[in-house]
This record gives sequence, C-alpha cells and structure tokens, in this order.
Amino acid sequence: MTPSSPVATTVLHPDRLLPADDATRAIARDLYDSVADAPIISPHGHVSPDLLREDRPFADPAELFIVHDHYVTRILRSAGVDLADLGAGGGPYDPREVWRAFASRWELFAGTASGYWLRDEFVELFGLREEPSADRADAHFDAISGQLRLAEYRPRALFERFAIDVLATTDDPLDDLSAHRELAADATLRGRVLPTFRPDAYLDPQAPSFVSRTEALAAWSGSPVADYDAYLDGLRARREYFIAHGAVSADHGVRQPFTVELEHDEAARLYRRAVSGRLSEDEAEVFAGHMLLMSAEMSVRDGLVMTVHPGVLRNHSTETFAAYGPDTGHDIPVATEYTRALRPLLQRFGTAADFHLILFTVDETVYSREIAPLAGFYPSVFIGAPWWFLDAPDAIQRFRSATTETAGFYNGSGFIDDTRAFLSIPARHDAARRSDAGFLARYVREGRLSIRQAERIALDLVDAIPRRAFKL
Amino acid sequence: MTPSSPVATTVLHPDRLLPADDATRAIARDLYDSVADAPIISPHGHVSPDLLREDRPFADPAELFIVHDHYVTRILRSAGVDLADLGAGGGPYDPREVWRAFASRWELFAGTASGYWLRDEFVELFGLREEPSADRADAHFDAISGQLRLAEYRPRALFERFAIDVLATTDDPLDDLSAHRELAADATLRGRVLPTFRPDAYLDPQAPSFVSRTEALAAWSGSPVADYDAYLDGLRARREYFIAHGAVSADHGVRQPFTVELEHDEAARLYRRAVSGRLSEDEAEVFAGHMLLMSAEMSVRDGLVMTVHPGVLRNHSTETFAAYGPDTGHDIPVATEYTRALRPLLQRFGTAADFHLILFTVDETVYSREIAPLAGFYPSVFIGAPWWFLDAPDAIQRFRSATTETAGFYNGSGFIDDTRAFLSIPARHDAARRSDAGFLARYVREGRLSIRQAERIALDLVDAIPRRAFKL
Amino acid sequence: MTPSSPVATTVLHPDRLLPADDATRAIARDLYDSVADAPIISPHGHVSPDLLREDRPFADPAELFIVHDHYVTRILRSAGVDLADLGAGGGPYDPREVWRAFASRWELFAGTASGYWLRDEFVELFGLREEPSADRADAHFDAISGQLRLAEYRPRALFERFAIDVLATTDDPLDDLSAHRELAADATLRGRVLPTFRPDAYLDPQAPSFVSRTEALAAWSGSPVADYDAYLDGLRARREYFIAHGAVSADHGVRQPFTVELEHDEAARLYRRAVSGRLSEDEAEVFAGHMLLMSAEMSVRDGLVMTVHPGVLRNHSTETFAAYGPDTGHDIPVATEYTRALRPLLQRFGTAADFHLILFTVDETVYSREIAPLAGFYPSVFIGAPWWFLDAPDAIQRFRSATTETAGFYNGSGFIDDTRAFLSIPARHDAARRSDAGFLARYVREGRLSIRQAERIALDLVDAIPRRAFKL
Repeated sequence: MTPSSPVATTVLHPDRLLPADDATRAIARDLYDSVADAPIISPHGHVSPDLLREDRPFADPAELFIVHDHYVTRILRSAGVDLADLGAGGGPYDPREVWRAFASRWELFAGTASGYWLRDEFVELFGLREEPSADRADAHFDAISGQLRLAEYRPRALFERFAIDVLATTDDPLDDLSAHRELAADATLRGRVLPTFRPDAYLDPQAPSFVSRTEALAAWSGSPVADYDAYLDGLRARREYFIAHGAVSADHGVRQPFTVELEHDEAARLYRRAVSGRLSEDEAEVFAGHMLLMSAEMSVRDGLVMTVHPGVLRNHSTETFAAYGPDTGHDIPVATEYTRALRPLLQRFGTAADFHLILFTVDETVYSREIAPLAGFYPSVFIGAPWWFLDAPDAIQRFRSATTETAGFYNGSGFIDDTRAFLSIPARHDAARRSDAGFLARYVREGRLSIRQAERIALDLVDAIPRRAFKL
Repeated sequence: MTPSSPVATTVLHPDRLLPADDATRAIARDLYDSVADAPIISPHGHVSPDLLREDRPFADPAELFIVHDHYVTRILRSAGVDLADLGAGGGPYDPREVWRAFASRWELFAGTASGYWLRDEFVELFGLREEPSADRADAHFDAISGQLRLAEYRPRALFERFAIDVLATTDDPLDDLSAHRELAADATLRGRVLPTFRPDAYLDPQAPSFVSRTEALAAWSGSPVADYDAYLDGLRARREYFIAHGAVSADHGVRQPFTVELEHDEAARLYRRAVSGRLSEDEAEVFAGHMLLMSAEMSVRDGLVMTVHPGVLRNHSTETFAAYGPDTGHDIPVATEYTRALRPLLQRFGTAADFHLILFTVDETVYSREIAPLAGFYPSVFIGAPWWFLDAPDAIQRFRSATTETAGFYNGSGFIDDTRAFLSIPARHDAARRSDAGFLARYVREGRLSIRQAERIALDLVDAIPRRAFKL
Repeated sequence: MTPSSPVATTVLHPDRLLPADDATRAIARDLYDSVADAPIISPHGHVSPDLLREDRPFADPAELFIVHDHYVTRILRSAGVDLADLGAGGGPYDPREVWRAFASRWELFAGTASGYWLRDEFVELFGLREEPSADRADAHFDAISGQLRLAEYRPRALFERFAIDVLATTDDPLDDLSAHRELAADATLRGRVLPTFRPDAYLDPQAPSFVSRTEALAAWSGSPVADYDAYLDGLRARREYFIAHGAVSADHGVRQPFTVELEHDEAARLYRRAVSGRLSEDEAEVFAGHMLLMSAEMSVRDGLVMTVHPGVLRNHSTETFAAYGPDTGHDIPVATEYTRALRPLLQRFGTAADFHLILFTVDETVYSREIAPLAGFYPSVFIGAPWWFLDAPDAIQRFRSATTETAGFYNGSGFIDDTRAFLSIPARHDAARRSDAGFLARYVREGRLSIRQAERIALDLVDAIPRRAFKL
C-alpha cells in the first residue's frame, strides 16, 4: 500500500448513534450498556424457519448480503445496476461479480440504514477492518467466503451467538409448519422460533392468488369453496393450528387499514362472487375491509395479537415485477389514514378484553396525528415500531418524539426488525437500543425523566414491553 | 425506609426543557429567566368562570388532577383501567381509589406532556418530593388533601399566585354571562376573566343539539326559528352581548375548516330545512361551511378575533361516549386541509382591515405547508399555538422549526394553554416559555439571531404578541 | 450615539448555521471550509439573462432587495403594509419610502430564511455593520445607493465575484434566446448562462394563456393550431432549439404530478377541443397529465433533464392577483401525491437509459414516504433540493434527515437556489453548504460516516452530484 492510496479503515465507534452532546452522551452510554447484551426478542420478521432447520452454510458473501436483500439491491438499481446482474428473481449470477458491483459503489450506502447495518455486520461478524471498495473487493470476498465455511458461521451457531430469545417467522396459513415443529422439538436450540399467521392472500380478493388460496383452504377443510361460513371456520381452524404450533400473532399487510362491518348475508354474497373472480375493485375493497374486521373478531376470541402493516403500494414497476418478481425494491409507500378507517373495527373491539392491535406505518405523518392518540386511549391499540423505511436512527428519533409526548413508552410494541436479512438482526436491534438510549438520555438531560425512570424504561423496551404487546 | 425500597425523589431541574448543549443552555437560561415571572395571558381555554366565582376549595386530589382531565384518564384507560373507576361521566367514585389507580401507574406518564405538567404541579404547588407510586399513594393523597383545605389553595388564591393577567373561558352563546359579570365587578380580583363566544352547536346542523339550540336562540330573540335573517341577527346580537361582557374572540371547533359562500336565498333555504332536521350530511357540510364564512363576516364587522380549531373527530368510541359522555379521551385527529378549504373565506376577508383569524391544528403536516405560508402573506392570518396533542416540549420545537423560517415570530398568536385543568396553567406556560427560550437560544448559537433580537422576541412572545393577536 | 440608544451591531458569526455541540461544530467547520469557496452551480432559477446582458447598475436598495422579491414583500404584507406602497405589480413607488417600510419592520424577518440571506448580503456585499432599523434606514439607504454606482456592483462584476460557474435561467419555449446567444458568445464571461425550457403554459389547458400560446407555437411552426401531431413536433423542435442554445433541462411547474397515458387519437381529440377553449376542468387535468408523460418521452429522446415542481396553488388571493399580478407572495402549497400520480410515467420511462427526472416538493411529508423510496429504486429519479418554503436551514436538516437514510446522498440533485433574487445566490448556496456540513458532521460524530466519507460527500454535493443530475 502506498501512502497515496491509503485504505479507509472501518472502525465501529463505541459511542455510535449516541447523542453529540457530551453530558447527554454519557447518560446514553450508561443506558445503552445496561441493555446492550440483553437477549433479542424478534416477534415479527421474515427469516425462513428452513434456514435454521437445515442449518446449511451460507454460500458466499453475495448470497448472504446482497442478492436476497432488496434494501441493498434497490440502491444499486437506483445507480443503474441491472437487477439481473445482482441475481434478482432467482436467475443465475456470479457471486464475485455481484460483490464487486456492490463494493465498488459503497459510497451509495453512506448515510443509509442499510449501510450502517452492513458495516456493523462486516466488522462485528467478519472482522473486516476496511471499507468496501473496488480495490479490495476480491480480498474481502475471499476473506468472508473463508469464514463462511467455518462451523461458527452456520445459521444455528449464529442464532446462538446473536442471543435470540424469540424469533417469529411469517407463514402461509396453509403451511404445515413442519419446520417449526422440528425446531420446537429440538432441545439443542435455546431460543424459540414461532410461526406467524399471515392471511392476506386469503382475505383480499384483489390478491392475485385469492381464488387458488381459498380453493386450497376449502380443500383442506373439506368444504365447498363458495361456502362463506366454512371459509370463516377454515380460517379459524388454521389459526388454532398456528396457535398450537406456538404462533402469537396474525399479521395483516393490507393496502389501507380500511374496515367495515357487513351483514352476514351480504358478506357471504360478496365472498361467493369473489371466489369466482367476479368482484369489482370497489367490492373487493369492501370485502377485504370486512375481513380485516372479522380477523379482529377472531383475534378477540383466540387471542392472537393482530398486527397491521398497511400503506405500501407493492411492485410499483410492473416491468420489474414481471422480470424479477416481488420484493425487488420497488414497493413504495402511500399516505395512510387510520382514524376513520379503523373506526368500525375499534367501535366493535377497541375495548375488548385482552385484544391487542399493533399499528405500523410507513407514513410518519400519522404518528402524532392518529396512532399515538388512538394508542393513548384504546387499551387494545399499541404503537408499532418504526417500520421499513423508518427503522433507521434519525427516523427512530422522529418516531419517539412524535409518539412519546402523547402516549408514553408503554403503549408501544418495542423494536421490531421485520427483516429477511438474518445477519442484520443483531445490528438492527443494537441500533434501536442505541437510538432509544439516546432519546431517553435527552429526556433525562432535559429534566423530563429521572435517571431511574430512564433506566427502567430502557430495560422494559427490550423485554417487558415487547413481551406484553406480543403476549410472549 | 429501607435501603431495598428507596423512594424515588422528585426534583425539578432548574434547567429542565432547556437545550442539552452547555453553551446553548446558558443562553436559553438567560432568556428564560427574563420571562419566567411574566404575568400569564391565557386568551383561550376551558376553565369554568364558576370556579373563580364560587371559590370553593378543591375536593380532593382525584377530583383536582384526574377525574376531570381527559388527558390523564385516557392514559389510564389505555392501560386497561375502567373509566367508571375514574369517575368519568359524573358517576360516583372513591377519590382515594382513583388516586391509587393513578399513582400505581405513574410509569405510564413518563415522557408525556401530562406527566411533565403533573410533576411540576406536585412539586411547585404541593411540595411533593417523591414520585407518585403505589407504596406512597395514600401518603401523597393525604398530604395534598390536607393542603387543599388551606385558604391559599382555593381557586382565587391560586389565580393570584399564578399571576394570571387574562383568562378567557369558553361559553355558550346563550349563556347569560352572570359569572363573568360578577367577576368583572369584583375589584379584589386583579386579573381579567373574559368570556369567549363558542357557537359551533348553533352553526353546524350535524351538531346533535343544533335544532334545540337554534330554537332557543329564536326564542331569545323573539323571532320564528325558521327565519334565517333573524337567526343571523340573533347571532350578531349575542356576539354584541359577549363583547359588552369583555369577550375578544369567537372560537370555532369545526370538523374541517371548509368554507363556502352561498347566495342568501340558498342559505336561507338550507337553514329552514336544517332547523327541521331534514338536511342531508352533504348539505349540512355546505351550510356549516357557509356559516364559518358568515362568522368571518361578523368578525370583520364587530371585531371579535376568530379562532379556528379544526380537525378532530370527536367521540371516536361510541360505546364510551354513550356511557360517559364527551371529553373522555377519545377525540382523535384527522388530516386537515387549509389552503383550499379556507380560500373562499380569505378571498372575501383575508385582507380586511383589522380582521384576525387564528388557525390551530392537530395535524402538524400543515405547519410548513399551509399555515405558515398563509400567515406569511395574509395580514389577517395568525399561526395558532401548538394545540392539544402538540402542546408538548418536542412538539413545540417542531412547531417553531416548521413555521419560523417562513413566517417569523410575529405572525403567531403566542402560547395558548387551551386547558380545563386550572392547576396546570402555570406549568404549561412555564413549559412553553422554556421551550421557546431553547428555540431562540439555538438560533442565537447558530448565528441566526443576535442575543438582542432573541431577548426582545422572548419578551414579545409572552406579552406583545398575544396581546396583538387577541386584541387585548 | 447615546448609551441609551445603542445601535445593534450586525456580525456574521463565522460558525453560523453549524451545530451547537462543540465537537460536532469543529468537524462541521472543517467540512464547510473545504467547500466554502467552491464555484457555484445553479442549474435552476429565475434570474433574467437580460440582467447580465445589459449589465446596468441596480437602481437602488428598494429595487434590489425588496420590490422584486416576493419572499420579502409577502412578509411586509402579512404585517399590513400595502403592496402598492412596495412597488408591487410594476406601479410607481418611492424607493426610500419602500426601504423605510422594510427597515422599520426588520423584526418581522427575525428567524426567517429571507432575513438570514438579507443580513448576509448586507454585511458581505455592502459592509453594513448595523441591523436595519427605522432610525438608520436613511443612512443605510444612502450607503448602499452609493455603492451601487460603483462598477464592482454591476451585475456582471458580481457574477464574477460570486464565482458562478453555471447559471440556468427559466425561459418561455418561444423565446428566441438572443440574450443567451449573446452571453454565450461573450468570451469575457467566465461562467455559463443556460436557458431552461419551461412549457407549462403550452401543456396545461387551464393556463390562462394556453390558447394564445399554442396559437403562437403553431404560427411559429407554420401548422394549423388544431393539429396535435404538429403541436408535439413544435414542442420537440423548440426543445431542440433550446438544446442548441445550451439548455440541459425542461422544467414543469404543474399543480399536481399527475400523469396518464392517453391513446393518440384521444389525446388529439382533447387537444383540438383544448385549443378552442372547450375542455372541462376534468378533461383539462387529464390532458395536462398526458402532456407531462409526453414530456418525459421527449426527455428520454432528446436528453433534457426533466424537473417537476408541483404542489403550489398559485395566486391564492384573487383580489391581489387582479391588482398586482403573479408572484406577489400568495402562492400557497397544497398536499401532493407522487407514488400513484407518477406511476404511469415511471411505468413507461422509470428505467429508461439516461433519463433524469428530478422531483421537487413543497410538501415535506413526501420526502420519507414517497420521494426517497422512488429515488432509492428508479435509476431515473433524483431527489430535488429543498424548495421554496423549505430551502431554509432547519428545513434543510429535516430534508436530509428524511431522505438520506433511505436513499443516501447520491440520489439527490445537489442544492438548487431557484431564486430571482440575484444577490441572494451566494448567501443561499453558502447557507446550504453550511447546513450540509452540519448534517454530515453530525453523522460523523454519531459514528455513521467516517471523516473521509464526509469529506468526499461534502465536495460531491457542490460539484459531482449536481453535474451528474443536470448532465452538466
């Protein structure tokens, strides 16, 4: 190495993400230290249970960090890289070339949440001491590849190393949950891996697979597909099956949190037309809104926590979707309304005993205007963690600032990573703990919390709060 | 007290709410000190004039701090406490049990605006040196109860102690204002107590009592209820009555700030149908929008400052409303639009001489987008203070940041407490003064204001600015 | 001067706009110093090319700072000053009286972006050492007037002094660009002055001059006005004319970024009715949305960067517009939607090679929700700089915070001044550089960027990033 081309050294500053002001930083550091090593509770996310069941070594750095992470591929796409060259959509790719494409554009990730997590993973997990770069791409690729062959880099070893106490996956209602059964029966796995009931495609007639899914559900339950009551019973039975396999929540990724209560016969009529693919778009919206409300009724009865993740227009670029499928980086948020849309549901179940409804958003304007006021009254409503584009350090500060003064800390769900990037889980939770420590420290410094209150809240945010919200 | 159960000590940090950075904090402290003891101007709020007229001792800590404060009861409700157990809706309650329910859940209030104000009141007014807790609930209840029997804790003594210079109440247009007359005639009361004309239920056909109110107005003026011109004259006459009793403003708590100008005959036609309860929802919206515009016309003529408090969906939980009535914690904001909605009104009166229109919001997205640009042009438009869910320290910083760069400090109304919690008035104004001092200090530290400018603005914000906006 | 009336001294703090925390400020200062003297790239704005072609001395301080700057006149209007007294609408005015009206109300500008820029200009360009005030108004007026007679205060001398490397103007599509030709041919002018194609009035049937403009375009191209294909060809030809004169972008000041793709014959049919003034409002919206998409198609072919500046309701006060014309301070933002509205355009051209679409907003809620996610995927989409009411220091911090974590620094356009106030250009760019230095320094201090990364980004933000976005 010549003096004229020094390699940028990566250092993880021990005080990263903590507030700039020294006095506040000192408080934040103590708060962070008290929770830095607490076990991880991850009650919602998209890691596959097969990853842990099969426990196969990760193939290579491209597969591990890039190909399956649409946060990463979208940034490269925005700079003109072709998704095909990144292995999108399951096509063939050259891992080393993918890694080079990424490493040579590392500056694109500066300041992003993904860049932060990746650097954390490179340093903490693989001991990389240099920033990714074109010059060093091959060396880094080889170094990481070498480590991936070691036993301690296999998924289950990492699961232990990460100190994951609870990891929830996201599963199709008709999934037989055999992976979960195996994992639950395996005494060598210390943490719990729980399924989550995700019925969107069974509830929304506009989902492309609605007809085939409802047919499959009817086939499973041995009833005619057009029988609305059997359909409801089938859903209830599958929820019970999930509960029997450890599920604690049902997740709803609706377009909008629209709810409406239909008379039984009207709902049955719409359902019959839906399964034959004859609903208009407006009717489909109404039926989906009715089924969101019916899902709440099921939650009231069977106790599954209801999480709602609305407000994303999926697959914005039809051309990209056609070529590479979903989850390829062009799901784009839209404005979302909760106060009026959820009113029919909350009129019915908002004060129901033991009902938990966790509201997420990618539209941060609703934090102070709608979600915190709703959570600050209804015993059922919890404020979901900063989600998707909002799960980054600055966004977390905005989230806390917008919700805490109205609803406090105890009407929230605790941090949710919601990730399919297994290796990023510790980095994400660590970032959230640092961010929350910084927020609490500011309130202490501003005389709004005593240090004792802040210490208690910091602990509760990583333990009691998510355990209560998700009934763990 | 044993070492194993230490009591958390409550200390009000002298620099609370001031910025973390030492250099900025020092500037802020000086600015705050210069206004800390300035008299309180409270030109909009919901304290009853009977409180001061009757001057009866407060009953107990539960009645004083909890039962009537829906900011407090809603947080307890969100944690599952039954509103009936908190005395909501005028039902019977056990004060000590209410206090215990509150004190044992004090952690819910950590970080909230209510928690901040309450702690301020406990320490500043009652000398409580410990955080509320289950263990100490009875002791605190007894200590406060004892003080409430003292003469200096009666409402008028506190009114003097608080150094309230102006206190505006909110009154029904047909109120005879006898309480205000008594208070105005009482030379022993140093501050002024002013009525405010609040005509919503007389202007909006969707108000449940619209028909009975307009009938009462017609009866008062001795005209047929269906006579639109008499209705307008009746409103004008009642405004004059209020003005004669010291009122300076008329307050409009509309759902949306929608305005429209109808032809006289069309308005009369809608009115006639409204008083017989036969308007459709759409027609009612139109008529209410017309009456908001007509109210502006009345303000242009009679000089009453017009305040608009839109964007709240009242009584979100019908079940709760049915059981406990309004103001029980489930009024939830909705997105609000001003630019287009107010245009008909501003086309007519936006540049009218001496017309004052103060715009409030619970939708903070409009600060930078709509309200500051409107106030930064129209001589009539003033930016209302951070309101309701937004009157907390962080929210105040966001408010100032979002409005100042476009409209400066002199297009605002000054702080408004808008409270029915009499004892919280000094804590709220003190918090606003600290927050504003912090904001100004940051601008000084960033070289955007000279210290002389900041000193002048700090003083004006608590005196000249509200006096001008409200014509005091 | 007596001790009792000291003159407020204006000092530009060398660290103005940098973060309060000392450690962060030190980093920010170094970053700022590295770019403080970099040449100015101004790829979008409203300075007239005649200013530089004619190079006449500025008339007086009122003409220079007040009369033509609707940011300044609107604030004075909001305090009740009559626009006629400020020379609005081209009417006669007394420069000294205009200056006095301004100087005596200097407190209105405290904390505003305009106030910040003006102070910078007064001190940096004219050496004024005192705050404007009623007392000193005449002295300041005379001092500035005296300097304006000097050669170094003429426009071209200032253009050199400001170190402007690129200055883009905004021009009517039928402008003959003779001023640009002259400036381009003038070897004594070091910087480049480029025209910008601004076709709004030719594309939107609701523009008051749509019919006369399209007639003029048809006359220029020698085709019948009702010929849709000739209309498109005419637009294409004028774009080529602009490109031949150095234009790099076409700017679209649409009401909403609504796009739709019409069949050719349907578009032709609407166009024929539009040029005879017979379109309904809804049809006009559709046609304008189609033409925005067609403009993208033209950009894909001819390479002009497409900038979109939507979301402003122009001329809110009809009375003011009638008396004084456009650009008189009452253009008011409205909520704006991009995700759905731009989808037809992005479906067609979002991934087209070398297409650049720069999205501006005056509705800051879309930064994190829509614009950053779009720019973080589509290679064509760039995040426009903080615009209009949002180009101030606090707003810039909010902008960076809301966009960076999702889209990084390299999906943006770099700072755009978008001003018609020539003298404010250096102050605005300097403020942006300071704000960005502060933002970067915070990320360094928080361990999110290395100092080397931050240094590189600071340089790129004022050079490589705008050059790439605008194809300079």
